[in-house]
Amino acid sequence: MIIVMKRDATEELVQKAAEKVERMGLKAHVIVGTERTVIAAIGDKREEMRESLETVAGVSKVVPILAPYKVASLEVKPEPTLVKAGSLEVGNGKCGVIAGPCSVESEDQIVATAKAVKAAGATALRGGAFKPRTSPYSFQGLKEEGLKMLATAREETGLAVVTEVVASEDVELVAKYADVLQIGARNMQNYRLLEEVGRVDRAVLLKRGPSATIDELLLAAEYILNEGNTRVMLCERGIRTFESHTRFTLPLATVSYLHQKTHLPVVIDPSHGTGHAALVPDMCVAAVAIGADGIIVEVHPEPDQAMSDGYQSLDLPTFDATMRRCRAVANAIGIQCGAEV
Amino acid sequence: MIIVMKRDATEELVQKAAEKVERMGLKAHVIVGTERTVIAAIGDKREEMRESLETVAGVSKVVPILAPYKVASLEVKPEPTLVKAGSLEVGNGKCGVIAGPCSVESEDQIVATAKAVKAAGATALRGGAFKPRTSPYSFQGLKEEGLKMLATAREETGLAVVTEVVASEDVELVAKYADVLQIGARNMQNYRLLEEVGRVDRAVLLKRGPSATIDELLLAAEYILNEGNTRVMLCERGIRTFESHTRFTLPLATVSYLHQKTHLPVVIDPSHGTGHAALVPDMCVAAVAIGADGIIVEVHPEPDQAMSDGYQSLDLPTFDATMRRCRAVANAIGIQCGAEV
Amino acid sequence: MIIVMKRDATEELVQKAAEKVERMGLKAHVIVGTERTVIAAIGDKREEMRESLETVAGVSKVVPILAPYKVASLEVKPEPTLVKAGSLEVGNGKCGVIAGPCSVESEDQIVATAKAVKAAGATALRGGAFKPRTSPYSFQGLKEEGLKMLATAREETGLAVVTEVVASEDVELVAKYADVLQIGARNMQNYRLLEEVGRVDRAVLLKRGPSATIDELLLAAEYILNEGNTRVMLCERGIRTFESHTRFTLPLATVSYLHQKTHLPVVIDPSHGTGHAALVPDMCVAAVAIGADGIIVEVHPEPDQAMSDGYQSLDLPTFDATMRRCRAVANAIGIQCGAEV
Amino acid sequence: MIIVMKRDATEELVQKAAEKVERMGLKAHVIVGTERTVIAAIGDKREEMRESLETVAGVSKVVPILAPYKVASLEVKPEPTLVKAGSLEVGNGKCGVIAGPCSVESEDQIVATAKAVKAAGATALRGGAFKPRTSPYSFQGLKEEGLKMLATAREETGLAVVTEVVASEDVELVAKYADVLQIGARNMQNYRLLEEVGRVDRAVLLKRGPSATIDELLLAAEYILNEGNTRVMLCERGIRTFESHTRFTLPLATVSYLHQKTHLPVVIDPSHGTGHAALVPDMCVAAVAIGADGIIVEVHPEPDQAMSDGYQSLDLPTFDATMRRCRAVANAIGIQCGAEV
Repeated sequence: MIIVMKRDATEELVQKAAEKVERMGLKAHVIVGTERTVIAAIGDKREEMRESLETVAGVSKVVPILAPYKVASLEVKPEPTLVKAGSLEVGNGKCGVIAGPCSVESEDQIVATAKAVKAAGATALRGGAFKPRTSPYSFQGLKEEGLKMLATAREETGLAVVTEVVASEDVELVAKYADVLQIGARNMQNYRLLEEVGRVDRAVLLKRGPSATIDELLLAAEYILNEGNTRVMLCERGIRTFESHTRFTLPLATVSYLHQKTHLPVVIDPSHGTGHAALVPDMCVAAVAIGADGIIVEVHPEPDQAMSDGYQSLDLPTFDATMRRCRAVANAIGIQCGAEV
Repeated sequence: MIIVMKRDATEELVQKAAEKVERMGLKAHVIVGTERTVIAAIGDKREEMRESLETVAGVSKVVPILAPYKVASLEVKPEPTLVKAGSLEVGNGKCGVIAGPCSVESEDQIVATAKAVKAAGATALRGGAFKPRTSPYSFQGLKEEGLKMLATAREETGLAVVTEVVASEDVELVAKYADVLQIGARNMQNYRLLEEVGRVDRAVLLKRGPSATIDELLLAAEYILNEGNTRVMLCERGIRTFESHTRFTLPLATVSYLHQKTHLPVVIDPSHGTGHAALVPDMCVAAVAIGADGIIVEVHPEPDQAMSDGYQSLDLPTFDATMRRCRAVANAIGIQCGAEV
Repeated sequence: MIIVMKRDATEELVQKAAEKVERMGLKAHVIVGTERTVIAAIGDKREEMRESLETVAGVSKVVPILAPYKVASLEVKPEPTLVKAGSLEVGNGKCGVIAGPCSVESEDQIVATAKAVKAAGATALRGGAFKPRTSPYSFQGLKEEGLKMLATAREETGLAVVTEVVASEDVELVAKYADVLQIGARNMQNYRLLEEVGRVDRAVLLKRGPSATIDELLLAAEYILNEGNTRVMLCERGIRTFESHTRFTLPLATVSYLHQKTHLPVVIDPSHGTGHAALVPDMCVAAVAIGADGIIVEVHPEPDQAMSDGYQSLDLPTFDATMRRCRAVANAIGIQCGAEV
Repeated sequence: MIIVMKRDATEELVQKAAEKVERMGLKAHVIVGTERTVIAAIGDKREEMRESLETVAGVSKVVPILAPYKVASLEVKPEPTLVKAGSLEVGNGKCGVIAGPCSVESEDQIVATAKAVKAAGATALRGGAFKPRTSPYSFQGLKEEGLKMLATAREETGLAVVTEVVASEDVELVAKYADVLQIGARNMQNYRLLEEVGRVDRAVLLKRGPSATIDELLLAAEYILNEGNTRVMLCERGIRTFESHTRFTLPLATVSYLHQKTHLPVVIDPSHGTGHAALVPDMCVAAVAIGADGIIVEVHPEPDQAMSDGYQSLDLPTFDATMRRCRAVANAIGIQCGAEV
């Protein structure tokens, strides 16, 4: 850590700040500059240290040198992690394809969708049974009935099931039916829930909150990893910006950046990331091209009849055509996207 | 709702879209323009309608006319709500002052702080016992021990206790000790938690998420109101923007805007809203001037020893001086800020 | 346009608002809803109308139905525009590749770079002679000397020259040497400059401002098109968001969205869009995959000796490797990226 | 400056980076940490240095210690600057009040407005003659005719005239009629224009661009100050964020922050900052309360007849009432707001 003193900090204040650093178990190295004095604090103490040093008299600012996350870091595990969950493989050259409706609506709907997305090349089925909705007046999901329908669809197709869990008290129930527990963007910092999914034997898809920094996302992943669950996938689903022609702004650079910082695989969600079905296919192709370890796509047999998110769902022919484009690009860059068809 | 058809939508598609509107129980009114045809859908159906109409063939966009929230709306209850919780009064000309440390650290700390902030004019005590922290390696709060210390501080001073609850399973416990349950920004859309605090007899301070829109904040409030709890205070604590010289960007216009849309009172949090103790006093004064119904301020006897958020906490003399400035402004504009001292 | 009246607007106010609409030369169509009355204003009057209607007594909001731009619109010209400027072709299945240093530094530097980027497959040379710099203390460019060096590099390689013009009084001078006039992000709304480049016979590369909406970008393009210059390329170079691990946030969805709204070609700038050389190659590949009509990339023979933007410039071997990846993807999706090599 | 080396940087790379620092005329101080090596670069070289060091082999990041601006800095001139221009005084305890229409529309309009705002307590008149408009189809201003009308209004009222200049070639003309040259948000980084206004004997009101950082604003001010013009006022007019219920987001904390960094006075523009007349009065009051050195407010005798920005303009009675509220708050905190009335 680098502690920058104020321009007018006396020698005595510098001395006191240095002593505080030493009391924290770090080595303090004072450097007198021409305009400012800085103290280099040597050793590995992180975020909490920064905060308490910022309030010391005479200190102007504190600059962290090390990233605040540890277990997720590429420095700790330099080789990329491949997450497996049933039919789904994500990471290390495998681009998994998770597809299905926003909400599970009926057994017919989910089974038919599962068959169709599998035929198009998907390697896992998504579908919401517990739906966190912005408005209390919106459809809230079929709950356990929906989970059972997902399990039926798995039986019929062999596709791994990815579904959201919204509360720590539901983890056990959802884990009974699902292969992958999805943590939604609204719950990225629901720490009780993160700890709970860290304790079950299910892979986790952790979505980035729309205003979370990358460091915050990785620290949320650490809550899960710390409990012993190593099968964590990070999911970029767009950030909130001033842009209004898309629902969120989807920064694909996140993939490249995360690949340089963490061993965890990175999945892209172009459905929420754009919010418009007309923009989703191109974004799927671009996600594969940039090296995403997976894509998660909302697909519905009849988008205009969907109980939620129809406006950003692909219909079956469009999903099939999109998968063909994705495979062409994947072949060109030497990775595998979804299943062979 | 206004449904804008695509430029090239055929008469048949217009007809079909109109029929869909009618099937939803709304009256469809087709208007043929020089460049586009629009359909006015008359009646009160909201968000879910918009979504499903957007996917109808030939439709270009759907423009909602009504706000998506109901119970929180000024149209439903035109007079401002005054929320009372023990010594705290917020709304309708009363600007409540909630002050105290980020975290409860010890009985001595919290009791001493309570006495000091009361003497300076605060009308409630804040202090965190359950702390949601970005990093799993940071101090997580004293939990029930901390709640007991808050209760002791209330006994000694008479100040109402405001403290955060982070999980639905903790609501009963926290409600045992607290007068006001705070929902933190990270949990603004933790719907299970919102429903749970909607069912207890405690006032609720609902913080805006850093990327939540005002409509999303009001819909989160509706989750609580819908369960029967009417003592809801909204709290603006800053949004995430590109600005890096403040921790968040604190838009005071939220106060005026909300006062024109909802009867619920609005509290400002200048501590998180700026993230720097040096900016907090001025922001308190401005919040009072713009007509906030309350302010919530982090105050610590020794900010540089604080276990969390020290860098944005006021020390006791600064808080006292700030309250003097706030009262001067409040007097000038004819409202009451905090307690008479 | 749809004019939404306030809930409590009297019939008289509705009548008056409708009359104002008629006085503007539009047809007013009043629709009485269950909760609100709306007026549909039929005819083609745009932005200025909206503004003046919003202030009419009783009006709650005005919702535009038509986009504010005209000439740039796909409705006016449904087939994509191919912009040609010397060796550069951008649009309609041709992905142009513009490469070169941020600043022209010397004849040797620019000629050597031009030869190298041409060998790697670039179809135009970029290089700044007039440099707008955030700080008055930074290097401001070689000005006309730099332009001459660019012209020499063109003679030696045949590559078209793309260079920035920062003031209307310089347009004539820069046009003497350049094939494409670049309007930088800071000048996207410098209307005098836009009008001036609209009057010369040079192609224009118009960069999006970091907080400009897409509509604002298209309206800026209209300033140029309106003067008669039809060779306009739009350039997405990233928007300013809360993200700090990249210099800007580069939303590739802009390409797909613009292709659905305008006939003008869209160029992606991954160098400014990410701000870090380590993220540029992947972003180039993704830009080609999503269907960008061009990419513009900062390349320098010795990035650590560059007088500006070295941290986001590719060295020559990295640019060559990036072009190979881009061509592989381009072949897979059936477009041409840069020159055959 | 602090140069953070990569975790795996060899001793040789550290040595080379240190040598580069020394070649730049700075003293290099190498500190070997437990996880990383950092180099403290001692001496005063700024932005350009940072950039070129970031590209050196083995370097992970470069952290600037000093602010990039100089002349505007409080370290260079610790006492606040009071800017005077005719009847207008801004800074050092004087809160100037600049009021008037967005556009000058006719002599009657501008003279009547000038008289009314003066009677309400304004100390300067604003009005646009050269209007930069987003759309080429919008009203562009009366140009020199408008300037003459402003001069007439000054003769009739004694109010100083504040008006925008949009191009360097117009500076001389506008300066002939105006007391204060306004640089609009779109032109904050039009460096040629900044230099030109730096050379004339007129005060300058420099508006912050909607996505400019504070450092960028201060560096833009340096372009003016560097040319010898010391009468520079900074103006916060809101930043672009995801919020859509206001036109921009107006961060009042900018006032307090700038007062801690620069001696230049800070003016608040609540009209553009909120974009809705209903939010402007409260924001004026809050701006005065937080210690703004001035406010600039759009006022029009008939907002619903205005040729531009009517929706965010106050009518005369509302402006008068707002001034009364502002004066009450100003009195309470011991400053002077506008003229005695």
